[in-house]
Amino acid sequence: MLKYLFCLKISSEKMFDKEHIAKIVMIGAGNVGTHLGKALRQAGLEIMQVYSRDPGKAKVLALELESTPCHKLSEIFPTADLYVLAVHDDAIGEVSRTLKKVAFHEQLFVHTSGATPLDVICQKRRGVLYPLQTFTVGREPDFREIPICLDAAFDQDLQMLTYLAKRISHKVFHLTDEQRSVVHVAAVFANNFSNHMFHIAKDILDQEGLPFALLEPLIKETAGKLEQGNPKEMQTGPAIRRDDETIDRHLAYLKNLPRYRAIYELLTKSIQQT
Amino acid sequence: MLKYLFCLKISSEKMFDKEHIAKIVMIGAGNVGTHLGKALRQAGLEIMQVYSRDPGKAKVLALELESTPCHKLSEIFPTADLYVLAVHDDAIGEVSRTLKKVAFHEQLFVHTSGATPLDVICQKRRGVLYPLQTFTVGREPDFREIPICLDAAFDQDLQMLTYLAKRISHKVFHLTDEQRSVVHVAAVFANNFSNHMFHIAKDILDQEGLPFALLEPLIKETAGKLEQGNPKEMQTGPAIRRDDETIDRHLAYLKNLPRYRAIYELLTKSIQQT
Repeated sequence: MLKYLFCLKISSEKMFDKEHIAKIVMIGAGNVGTHLGKALRQAGLEIMQVYSRDPGKAKVLALELESTPCHKLSEIFPTADLYVLAVHDDAIGEVSRTLKKVAFHEQLFVHTSGATPLDVICQKRRGVLYPLQTFTVGREPDFREIPICLDAAFDQDLQMLTYLAKRISHKVFHLTDEQRSVVHVAAVFANNFSNHMFHIAKDILDQEGLPFALLEPLIKETAGKLEQGNPKEMQTGPAIRRDDETIDRHLAYLKNLPRYRAIYELLTKSIQQT
Repeated sequence: MLKYLFCLKISSEKMFDKEHIAKIVMIGAGNVGTHLGKALRQAGLEIMQVYSRDPGKAKVLALELESTPCHKLSEIFPTADLYVLAVHDDAIGEVSRTLKKVAFHEQLFVHTSGATPLDVICQKRRGVLYPLQTFTVGREPDFREIPICLDAAFDQDLQMLTYLAKRISHKVFHLTDEQRSVVHVAAVFANNFSNHMFHIAKDILDQEGLPFALLEPLIKETAGKLEQGNPKEMQTGPAIRRDDETIDRHLAYLKNLPRYRAIYELLTKSIQQT
């Protein structure tokens, strides 16, 4: 079902020697736009223009990318090889339609969203360039390690995007809409929900005046261990040991925190049913 | 409520110059016994003896710790300064009682459990030395970074244990039974439950033939980000954005995985109530 695109490298380098993507317009200057824009710039691509409806944001990112800022969709240059829609999921369709009304019919448009189907873009030449990472202001990710999930309506565009993506990451995948949406559900568990577990842990400690520093090495190791085995084999704790005494003590402690108690009960059951 | 024990360092070094803990018997040769034993040995302590009811395990660890193996409780040397009960939570009381029947009345006994009260040990001089980490065979932890939570029935023993713990870690805490049990509940969320989230993510990918490698950089970064901020501020995803369209799509996808669907619903609600 899934194809690593490594095998395309040589042919795509040959095929697109003269017509690969060189000039990019970045639409959106949020976390994804900023980090992706920087990775592309560092790989030697030209970011022709940076659009954000917030002029200040456009200016800041444009400066960083040696680019030109823009805060009106009507002023976006029509001559780039690629338009990257790094905007909120629910704005992708709207921006795409607005631009198509003006003039953008033949250009290649991609969005960067894990949760959004390819066809939300209304340009004929449409694609997806979804970097599977959680980006934070002020934290520089190692882009070479970030999986980039690609898709496109046309094979030739997919190959061009592959060639581009391989310039910034060595983990390039072709995922269909369906596959990307499955990956997105899985990412919600792996990132959003695990982060919520860390939040609950911190909240429990805070209420007793205990420092979160106590748990930081544990959290780091919980993630680090996965390099060596799969999470099912790594499962430890009272639930998997069916240590009912400890579980009962924990539930008794959580009786004044009913939201956390319900989560504790459900996850304990789920671990035991695994 | 919580005291870092760093301040005790000088006085404890002075006080116990001649009577600090030098000789240790390690009771239990599982993950905790192995990693703790190695850390103590590397810090220059003498591990007089390694007990495990499994003679093979006792032998392997004893060899590694330049120690003497033993698989009968009746043959444990009575002349150590410290007896470390690194056995399963529900065996601590039993081993302690069995040894007290033989001769062990005056020696200092500690257990290594986060979930077990101090008084489960029946020796008068009892304590806790709980390294807050998840240990895996074949993975060498950096013990200096592992928080060690101490407790003891007598101040003088607490000081001796502090002096000992500071030889293997620079994060030494004094936690009462109550505090330690709160930390243990928090650790269940931070480690056991987050690991279960990783398991679910992997399971979802497996079912579609997608590789877990797609999520590994994301998981690493989810934990790594906590160095820079607290998890509440790091929360991202459809739940916190109240992106109902995406949530509905995810729930529809999970309709054939009712256990995961229930977890998705409960955690989404919990994130939104945070």
